[in-house]
Amino acid sequence: MSKPPAKPSTRKIHASPEEAEAAFYDAFERCDLAAMMAIWVSDKHAVCIHPGGPRLAGFEAIRASWSEIFAGGPGFKMKVSEVRAMTGQTLAIRTVYETLIPDNGEPPPAPILATNIFALTPAGWRIALHHASSSPPGTVAEEQGTGRVLH
Amino acid sequence: MSKPPAKPSTRKIHASPEEAEAAFYDAFERCDLAAMMAIWVSDKHAVCIHPGGPRLAGFEAIRASWSEIFAGGPGFKMKVSEVRAMTGQTLAIRTVYETLIPDNGEPPPAPILATNIFALTPAGWRIALHHASSSPPGTVAEEQGTGRVLH
Repeated sequence: MSKPPAKPSTRKIHASPEEAEAAFYDAFERCDLAAMMAIWVSDKHAVCIHPGGPRLAGFEAIRASWSEIFAGGPGFKMKVSEVRAMTGQTLAIRTVYETLIPDNGEPPPAPILATNIFALTPAGWRIALHHASSSPPGTVAEEQGTGRVLH
Repeated sequence: MSKPPAKPSTRKIHASPEEAEAAFYDAFERCDLAAMMAIWVSDKHAVCIHPGGPRLAGFEAIRASWSEIFAGGPGFKMKVSEVRAMTGQTLAIRTVYETLIPDNGEPPPAPILATNIFALTPAGWRIALHHASSSPPGTVAEEQGTGRVLH
């Protein structure tokens, strides 16, 4: 039996915050825990706040939360829209609306507002903070035309 | 009659993100709109998300929201605790718990989790993003000992 590789093949180097964010939502849509955690900074500074949830600090607490969220498996498309970005030398801040569109044709739940912060590390851009919260119905429609759709 | 000063006296230059954040919560506690808006970056990049609310973008929309929030006037102490910070060259990210302690002795509502982002501008550190959301009861107690109380 061969040993598993030291680093999973999902551990890509992202050259920009945009690329890291696209990988984040791709992993989210696929409910791929390895791919999701490959995008996070791997230290105690990482912070993740799911809608209505407590602050999760550090890689392991964040990993456990995504493991729970992904337990049901995929079944939706993730639409990310109305991106607003501020980009510094080593930190980038993006606020987006997340809309989960169920594959079974059911209507999507109310969009989630997320603040995503990316940090430039020796291994490229990684997500360092994700703060998500529910938003009132209709707010994406109100903002239409002010942002752009990622995928 | 003398003309009003070109800049309000509340427009201080904050030498650090910590100082800007203390001024933000001081203005919040005092329901002082001029002092609050003196701390914000004054351009379209400013983003403010109140608990359960939509994304407000740009100085004027943010100003209108604080005007509404402050309409009832002060009547509480603001406790800011369990600060976690990441500080870059020109951007600083802080996540905190906000607890509003009513002056009339009523029990405080559930704490709010806030992500505050500060930007270094020619006029010192200013707040560029405030994303607040409700947190489950008991989460501050769970985190006790991992952060520090600001004031």
